[in-house]
Amino acid sequence: MNRQWLLARRPQGMVSADDFHLVEQPIPELSDGQVLVRNLYLSCDPAQRGWIGHDTYLPAVKLGDVMRSIAAGEVVESRHRRFESGQVVQGILGWQDFAVVNPDSSMLTPVLPGVPIDASLSVLGLNGLTAYFGLLEIGRPQPGETVAVSAAAGATGSAAGQIALIKGCRVVGIAGGSDKCRYVSELGFHAVIDYKAEDVSERLRETCPNGIDIYFDNVGGDMLNAALARLAMRGRVVLCGAIARYNDTAPSPGPSNYLSLAVQRGRMEGFIVLDYYDRASEAIPVLYGWMNEGKLKYRTDVVHGLENAPAALARLFNGENQGKQLVKIADPSGP
Amino acid sequence: MNRQWLLARRPQGMVSADDFHLVEQPIPELSDGQVLVRNLYLSCDPAQRGWIGHDTYLPAVKLGDVMRSIAAGEVVESRHRRFESGQVVQGILGWQDFAVVNPDSSMLTPVLPGVPIDASLSVLGLNGLTAYFGLLEIGRPQPGETVAVSAAAGATGSAAGQIALIKGCRVVGIAGGSDKCRYVSELGFHAVIDYKAEDVSERLRETCPNGIDIYFDNVGGDMLNAALARLAMRGRVVLCGAIARYNDTAPSPGPSNYLSLAVQRGRMEGFIVLDYYDRASEAIPVLYGWMNEGKLKYRTDVVHGLENAPAALARLFNGENQGKQLVKIADPSGP
Repeated sequence: MNRQWLLARRPQGMVSADDFHLVEQPIPELSDGQVLVRNLYLSCDPAQRGWIGHDTYLPAVKLGDVMRSIAAGEVVESRHRRFESGQVVQGILGWQDFAVVNPDSSMLTPVLPGVPIDASLSVLGLNGLTAYFGLLEIGRPQPGETVAVSAAAGATGSAAGQIALIKGCRVVGIAGGSDKCRYVSELGFHAVIDYKAEDVSERLRETCPNGIDIYFDNVGGDMLNAALARLAMRGRVVLCGAIARYNDTAPSPGPSNYLSLAVQRGRMEGFIVLDYYDRASEAIPVLYGWMNEGKLKYRTDVVHGLENAPAALARLFNGENQGKQLVKIADPSGP
Repeated sequence: MNRQWLLARRPQGMVSADDFHLVEQPIPELSDGQVLVRNLYLSCDPAQRGWIGHDTYLPAVKLGDVMRSIAAGEVVESRHRRFESGQVVQGILGWQDFAVVNPDSSMLTPVLPGVPIDASLSVLGLNGLTAYFGLLEIGRPQPGETVAVSAAAGATGSAAGQIALIKGCRVVGIAGGSDKCRYVSELGFHAVIDYKAEDVSERLRETCPNGIDIYFDNVGGDMLNAALARLAMRGRVVLCGAIARYNDTAPSPGPSNYLSLAVQRGRMEGFIVLDYYDRASEAIPVLYGWMNEGKLKYRTDVVHGLENAPAALARLFNGENQGKQLVKIADPSGP
């Protein structure tokens, strides 16, 4: 039998367990071209809140469908020539014990040999690629520039900040709470702002005396507005996400300081990492190299049990997670 | 004697005559390198509202200083080798009958022989250059793309829309009132939206069925927000100005739909036309050519008398002006 979390309703405000419905169903038969995966880890990503709202860059998850999620697991059975049983893979596998998928539509890829699954789901997966392409392709950092990163202790923000450090930038992180701020400091950021304890505008003035050349934004809201007010000449805002807004029930105001973009000849540009998936093979070896050199660190926050998947997702939005939020739902079968 | 409008105070809200102070003073002696100009026409530009607020891309006009303004006039006396008396020139000459200026700091340039002064101050001056570089360098239109322009009957918007037409785009203009909308239609725009009489969001949906590839924004506010909601994949917002906001006394909300930039992989970018002044000699012959071919039309709205300069400036913000707002303060001396 296969436990599955189905979408029960479109969330109003903060996502909660009541928005989903846990069912048990038999595992369907495989058709030609399909693969059966036993899920081991579910990846929790802010984007999932968007996927259960309305259609955006992906069609919204339908009511009654399995909750969409990136996950990693072991191939149990394969009727697809590129996969074989025993292989560890990741892709869009959903909140369920077992996934029967078409490898192309679920973006199924092997986890590289020797790579820990949690790294493959974070710093070498969605988060690392988001940081890599967002910072390098949209932000285009130059050595010596000042880069500010929101949600800097998070899986994407911490990678973006570390890549900016590798590229020779001065990097300022914004995070919530002393634990997260200590972690950001340990990563080597030049300055850290605790938005829960400090005035972000004032601290951005202090820590970015020449303005912000690149603001890598995962948060939106007041922090984005404060950063726009500090934008340096020809500054760039990389719009990666807006976790502060995803659970809003009404449209919240946009950044009132957006006209800084005109005065400073700035650019605010969005991107979706899916657009860069065909270049993942270019980025992952680079990220892996930095990881092995100790220049690109990551940390993982693991909740146990498929039954806790909705609660784990909610942790992203109340800021409880310390690093990449995963849900471990089974042990690998291997030695 | 020289009449001059001095800045009396920083305006609160809508700019008014009370913010200025009309004085008479003797014309100072020329120093070496200076030029004495008798002003004929003052140019009214939304940017002037910003110049009397706080420092932005230019230092704010100081209290007690002559109001900063682009103007055109005749050289009465020159102690600068590049200028001679009788020549018609334009530059930052201020709200006054006579200006004693250093040609470099006031960006003094000759009006091209044969070019009407009003064209030189609008479609071949600040407005034409703003439209040309903003649309072509920031917007980068491709034939067949959909371009929407706010303040489409204005001096800059009408030029931007017509240049987009020349570049083979589908062009939708937004303007206020039936007179302005009729003018925009006469310019050949494919569709016109009257924001005073119609629902802009609904009409953008109708007139831009494939979304907006370029939004050339002179207005900000709700129109910008509506345009962001209709942004096409990889759409661009050219931030040229925000006339709806310049007289705000408190920060008004930013565009709540800014996350369309992420979903649509869009770009919102600002610019200041001053950055392109060294390329004016590249653009003006092109604009002049289009003007002579009848592809780039303009119209002028003239208020008479230096004493009416503050009232003429206010017309920009209440939307009374039909085309480029000028103040005629003297007749040319020529034949």
